[in-house]
Amino acid sequence: MADAAARPHLIVIGGGFAGLYLTQGLARAPIRITLIDRRNHHLFQPMLYQVATAALNPSDIASPIRSILRTQKNVDVLLGEVTRVDADAKTVQLADGEVLSYDYCAVATGARHSYFGRSEWESLAPGLKSVEDALEIRRRVLLAFERAEREPDPKKRHQDLTFVVIGGGPTGVEVAGALAEVRRFALARDFRHIDPREASVVLLEGGPRILSTYPPELSEKAKGTLRELGVDVRENTMVTAIHPDAVEAGGWRIPSTTVVWAAGNAASPLLATIGAPLDRQGRVLVEADCSVPGHPELLVLGDAAAHQHSDAPEAVPAVCPAAIQMGQHAARLIRASLAGRTRPTFRYWNKGELAVIGRGQAVANLGRLRFAGFPAWFVWIFIHIAYLIGFRNRLLVLIQWAWSYLTYGRGARLITGETGEYAARIQPPR
Amino acid sequence: MADAAARPHLIVIGGGFAGLYLTQGLARAPIRITLIDRRNHHLFQPMLYQVATAALNPSDIASPIRSILRTQKNVDVLLGEVTRVDADAKTVQLADGEVLSYDYCAVATGARHSYFGRSEWESLAPGLKSVEDALEIRRRVLLAFERAEREPDPKKRHQDLTFVVIGGGPTGVEVAGALAEVRRFALARDFRHIDPREASVVLLEGGPRILSTYPPELSEKAKGTLRELGVDVRENTMVTAIHPDAVEAGGWRIPSTTVVWAAGNAASPLLATIGAPLDRQGRVLVEADCSVPGHPELLVLGDAAAHQHSDAPEAVPAVCPAAIQMGQHAARLIRASLAGRTRPTFRYWNKGELAVIGRGQAVANLGRLRFAGFPAWFVWIFIHIAYLIGFRNRLLVLIQWAWSYLTYGRGARLITGETGEYAARIQPPR
Repeated sequence: MADAAARPHLIVIGGGFAGLYLTQGLARAPIRITLIDRRNHHLFQPMLYQVATAALNPSDIASPIRSILRTQKNVDVLLGEVTRVDADAKTVQLADGEVLSYDYCAVATGARHSYFGRSEWESLAPGLKSVEDALEIRRRVLLAFERAEREPDPKKRHQDLTFVVIGGGPTGVEVAGALAEVRRFALARDFRHIDPREASVVLLEGGPRILSTYPPELSEKAKGTLRELGVDVRENTMVTAIHPDAVEAGGWRIPSTTVVWAAGNAASPLLATIGAPLDRQGRVLVEADCSVPGHPELLVLGDAAAHQHSDAPEAVPAVCPAAIQMGQHAARLIRASLAGRTRPTFRYWNKGELAVIGRGQAVANLGRLRFAGFPAWFVWIFIHIAYLIGFRNRLLVLIQWAWSYLTYGRGARLITGETGEYAARIQPPR
Repeated sequence: MADAAARPHLIVIGGGFAGLYLTQGLARAPIRITLIDRRNHHLFQPMLYQVATAALNPSDIASPIRSILRTQKNVDVLLGEVTRVDADAKTVQLADGEVLSYDYCAVATGARHSYFGRSEWESLAPGLKSVEDALEIRRRVLLAFERAEREPDPKKRHQDLTFVVIGGGPTGVEVAGALAEVRRFALARDFRHIDPREASVVLLEGGPRILSTYPPELSEKAKGTLRELGVDVRENTMVTAIHPDAVEAGGWRIPSTTVVWAAGNAASPLLATIGAPLDRQGRVLVEADCSVPGHPELLVLGDAAAHQHSDAPEAVPAVCPAAIQMGQHAARLIRASLAGRTRPTFRYWNKGELAVIGRGQAVANLGRLRFAGFPAWFVWIFIHIAYLIGFRNRLLVLIQWAWSYLTYGRGARLITGETGEYAARIQPPR
């Protein structure tokens, strides 16, 4: 390690899928890596809705980044927030003022929710991106049942027992399906004065069909399955207002005290500091090799990148497999650059899409192979457990799931935290 | 259930050990029970330090009260905060104004920490009574290591790596031992710029020896084991000031940014509303049968009660077995009262004491049987797993422990929540 300081320095911003796969892809490369993240853990976001609906614990789907990279000697992990990337000076600045310089930099900061300019909706309708978001949604859902149990007024009870999910993409479909199941099975026996089966779940989609990136017949299948679970699916329904006790959408007023936002993405405000052209969501319009125009040493990966060079008809989607592939690509690119070889361009391999709807119910769109129901669900479980980082998590998650499946129980039904805390915490983006 | 409304009504305030054992002891009694708790979960407090030191998840040691009592048809569970007990009117008032009347009432509200009039210490040195407390301590401990990893100044690094535990009772000893182990084993391989083994743990005890309720030779053994783990045990050391960056105690100034309070108990402020005589800690001085003087239908149980009628030389201690026994006694008493039989008095059966110190290390004081080391640890594990409520938790806790034991890993090392949130949340007692 005597010559370690002389090696080129790569700064990776963000320990999500793209950042982690990039870092691990350079395990044996002659490079020093500093991975910076605001949180100490990597989060397996595709299963976050399971925390929000009290099926899993946060630590089942999150691992400390330090532990994941424990044996990789060329990595330094820093807990910190990057506030600026100076592409000309090749430096990044941290919130505490510290400035680090780099030879290569990869920005993989993911996305937050976009409320389309209505930031006042955020505290009324939390999104689902972080562990804190999921715990807040869990707290609100469980408290709504508790309030209903004590509420003598049937109108108010109905309002407490109506859950509105805004956005009919994969996350919205998964949350709506899971809420319907919590209601039907897990909580059904716990209450004396309400029948949790009276609770209703409403899924609002602004476009003409849910799961709009899937073939129409799978959207239709998913809608049918959701309806069987008791979810009220309303398409072509744009939300116009969110109040503490109701949602206004498509001319309807839906009384509800628990609303989940799964509608739009906005990239991290950090990207604006780079000075590169951005798309409407604030993502950097990257070159074909994922670099920032004019800065071949600065890469933008995952949900932070707008990559529109693919041979495929559509742009690279903001999904987990795309982030993994971009991370792997970036590792190849940096290895090639270090060795003086030609830099590869990025090509997205669309392996297909999977969305889970409920117990034993999912839809799968794997190219020409399109199927639904239990087989799709089984494929979903298999792929997601296989990708979960860290053996311990995989084992515990399997046990929790098996237990949940056999008993219809929900393992993690604790209400923690205080009312008002979440609203006090979320702040307008800088 | 047609005659259910005609049955006598018992209100149980608090779903801890006393409240839960009382409720379960009346499963087949001709009575209506309303159990009220501010939280939705029963917490297995003896293992809470394992959450604070990132070995277990909150849901491993906490279960929703509704789920525990799911099959007991004569119980209504209410999530709510009782603000007043009116012993003469036989009513309790909830924070939202609702008033419930009772035929019998049991107050089992446990204890919070006492900062001996220095309530400004609470945000600097959190105690360990609730899930939120444990998560806050976990967050502070993990963040201290993260700060030290980035700190170039050796003096400040030392300050970040010094953990002070105030109070040498069983909780203080358990926390100090567990912190020493986190430092030595679990985090040792995660950091690049600090050696977590440099971290020091200081245990401050105001009296002449730690574990003061144990025989002196076991206090001595525990002290020896803690010292082997690297804990700096200082007896006869009263804390005089706590600052954000140091603790002043016994003439010393110990630089530290992470302090845990395990020193004194104070009963719930609710007890003062009863109008009965209280002891110095604010506990109700109960009759020999645990009732409030002059109110045979109003019982006070567990840590909320000061019971000084025991045949044993000392009063009933504020420990979990005493709370369980009081709950069981109260169920017997109410069954006797309903049947018109003589009310039994409460007799505490001291089964002994156990305190765990570290991996394979504990002390046991079981009457004439006094032993330490691995056998005591094994007995501790066995008893605690056996008492954990709910089969699922027991199984998962065993797996997590086995995994931790084999790998020296810490399973639940997530930093969640935001800085400053805890300070904003805790409020001065009413």
